[in-house]
Amino acid sequence: MASNTQLKRVLVTGGLGYIGSHVVLTLLLSGRYLPIVIDNCHNAFPEAVNRCAEIARDEMGSDAPQPIFHKVDLRNPAEIDAVFDKYQTDGGIWGVVHLAALKAVGESSEIPLSYYQVNVGGSMSLLQSMAKYGCNVFVFSSSATVYGIPEVIPIPERSLVKAESTYGRTKAMVEDIIHDVCLSGTMEEPRKEPLKAVSVRYFNPAGAHPSGKLGEEPRGKPGNLLPLLAQMAVGREKSDLKVFGNDYPGSPDGTCVRDYLHIMDLAQGHVLALDAIAVPADQPNIFDKCDPSVDGYFRAFNLGRGKGQSVLTMIEAMRKATGFDYKYEIVGRRVGDVPDLTADPALAEKELGFVAKRDLPEMCRDLWNFQTKNPNGYEPTANGA
Amino acid sequence: MASNTQLKRVLVTGGLGYIGSHVVLTLLLSGRYLPIVIDNCHNAFPEAVNRCAEIARDEMGSDAPQPIFHKVDLRNPAEIDAVFDKYQTDGGIWGVVHLAALKAVGESSEIPLSYYQVNVGGSMSLLQSMAKYGCNVFVFSSSATVYGIPEVIPIPERSLVKAESTYGRTKAMVEDIIHDVCLSGTMEEPRKEPLKAVSVRYFNPAGAHPSGKLGEEPRGKPGNLLPLLAQMAVGREKSDLKVFGNDYPGSPDGTCVRDYLHIMDLAQGHVLALDAIAVPADQPNIFDKCDPSVDGYFRAFNLGRGKGQSVLTMIEAMRKATGFDYKYEIVGRRVGDVPDLTADPALAEKELGFVAKRDLPEMCRDLWNFQTKNPNGYEPTANGA
Repeated sequence: MASNTQLKRVLVTGGLGYIGSHVVLTLLLSGRYLPIVIDNCHNAFPEAVNRCAEIARDEMGSDAPQPIFHKVDLRNPAEIDAVFDKYQTDGGIWGVVHLAALKAVGESSEIPLSYYQVNVGGSMSLLQSMAKYGCNVFVFSSSATVYGIPEVIPIPERSLVKAESTYGRTKAMVEDIIHDVCLSGTMEEPRKEPLKAVSVRYFNPAGAHPSGKLGEEPRGKPGNLLPLLAQMAVGREKSDLKVFGNDYPGSPDGTCVRDYLHIMDLAQGHVLALDAIAVPADQPNIFDKCDPSVDGYFRAFNLGRGKGQSVLTMIEAMRKATGFDYKYEIVGRRVGDVPDLTADPALAEKELGFVAKRDLPEMCRDLWNFQTKNPNGYEPTANGA
Repeated sequence: MASNTQLKRVLVTGGLGYIGSHVVLTLLLSGRYLPIVIDNCHNAFPEAVNRCAEIARDEMGSDAPQPIFHKVDLRNPAEIDAVFDKYQTDGGIWGVVHLAALKAVGESSEIPLSYYQVNVGGSMSLLQSMAKYGCNVFVFSSSATVYGIPEVIPIPERSLVKAESTYGRTKAMVEDIIHDVCLSGTMEEPRKEPLKAVSVRYFNPAGAHPSGKLGEEPRGKPGNLLPLLAQMAVGREKSDLKVFGNDYPGSPDGTCVRDYLHIMDLAQGHVLALDAIAVPADQPNIFDKCDPSVDGYFRAFNLGRGKGQSVLTMIEAMRKATGFDYKYEIVGRRVGDVPDLTADPALAEKELGFVAKRDLPEMCRDLWNFQTKNPNGYEPTANGA
């Protein structure tokens, strides 16, 4: 296996979070990338890095690559620079996977300025540090919410980007900023190579690593449906289950429809995006079809399965996995929610080789496995820091 | 006349610039507002404040209100806070007119990250300080470029916002951010009153104060057509005159069409916007027709004349005003330029009472008057600092 010095260093922002930690793990398991994790621990725990390291050792042996964690807040540009600076004399950071963000659609309409400052401001500072340190490989954690209320289901990437929520707007704005930076090529000092970027538009991640050692572990009450269902089944979360709206047209039961994909599939999508950017310019690559004056080296891909599931379908799937008899209340629609977000996954399959293979029962099984093994969330493992 | 203590303090960001300085002057002349000017002097000179003060004394006498200048860079939030803090114990800053921005369409595609950091990041920091210090009145300097390539000419405010340049995108993003902050009401701490905001979408300002003491005085070569023509006529600018594209459809001569309005009319639009926001909630006001759940207290108005002028028309108008025989070269289109930006000014007239009365010969005459009186730009006046 490759020693750490042969691996490409990849900065993973928000690398302690649900998606981030599974990306970190998948980077380790790839044998090609060494994750440098940064996170401000706002909604995540440093223990996630230890769990990634443990699983990597379980699967790859004692010389498995080990992730490195630095506590950094993207709102402080000097902290970002310090991380780039630390590795600069030793080959530098090759690429960035940028996941750090505030992510609750409902909350985003209540504290919009915080969302813009963290998500948009943080991304600007990160891009500035990348330019300063000559780092030109960027994978951005975007969202299906950038499509707003899409005109066509399943949603192709060429759909109009017109977000309906503050959260979605922060993601759409960052895509625009990245795109403009890509288009500017090398004109903005001190950049010497044009930025190459892939925006991955997530549909709904679910599940956990099958080991049960890594999963979704938010601080406080979960904001997303599946971890809430898991915490209810394990007896940790006692609050009422509310279903926001059952009068959405086009849904089999009137509840919102989302395209769930397994978190390990989603994480793999990031590795495929990095792989795609790493292809040398003289070989066929994902930027071949870009018009340099219109696109720059910028591509956007959906990461989804192309299979829509209603809220009630998900509750039923979790009932089967957990045996828990969920009681729920139908309440009014929630501001910013969109009736149906189901991906057209064809482009990502064709160009990245991305296929989300794991099905809904597997997502629920792995989520429940994580929840039962960690009923109170992450606690330090024997070798944890 | 009102003493300074009875005037509403209005922070004017970018208040030394071409538009900013005429806004500052118009605030002084209104007898209702006291401008607190902040600027980083990137593309402007502190002398502009002295000129404003001088004209105010000329017109209002020795007890005319006097503007106050603080050198502040919006990229440094602590500097913004310090200004709010300075006045907080003495009634505070009542409202903000936010003009500070990088503004060259062409340059914005070359150094996009700088444009986003200054225009979007700076606005976020300003809004944060306003929330912190309980300042809830906001007039934002937006631009006709937010309409991109408009579907209808003249352009009504309800047109789709879809900017075609980085510069235009920075303005559209800030409008979205302001709008979301307005919508959030008082949920985001420490705000106690909901933000009330008007976005004024400028078409093309031209001319100068008729005294010849205040005008457009950029650092270095002018980026806009009219000051370039004025500097050529006075012998200060020797470079070639380039007309970017003469094959735009719908134009009388194929060159780009813009809606020029006199800078003193444009400045008056800002005072009218502040006046409109100041109307008590129990009287008919511009927010009456807002749906609180869709708009918040947010309105956008065009500031233009509704009369499109081609580039060649403007060159001819300046020839008449200056007597200078302009030689120009037709070159290719410039990235980000839009064929026609002519305002539908009806909404601003109806709701703000805004009418841009001064015509094209008056714009050219006042510009030329300023240029001939200041052939080398601003030099300190006898009482200047």
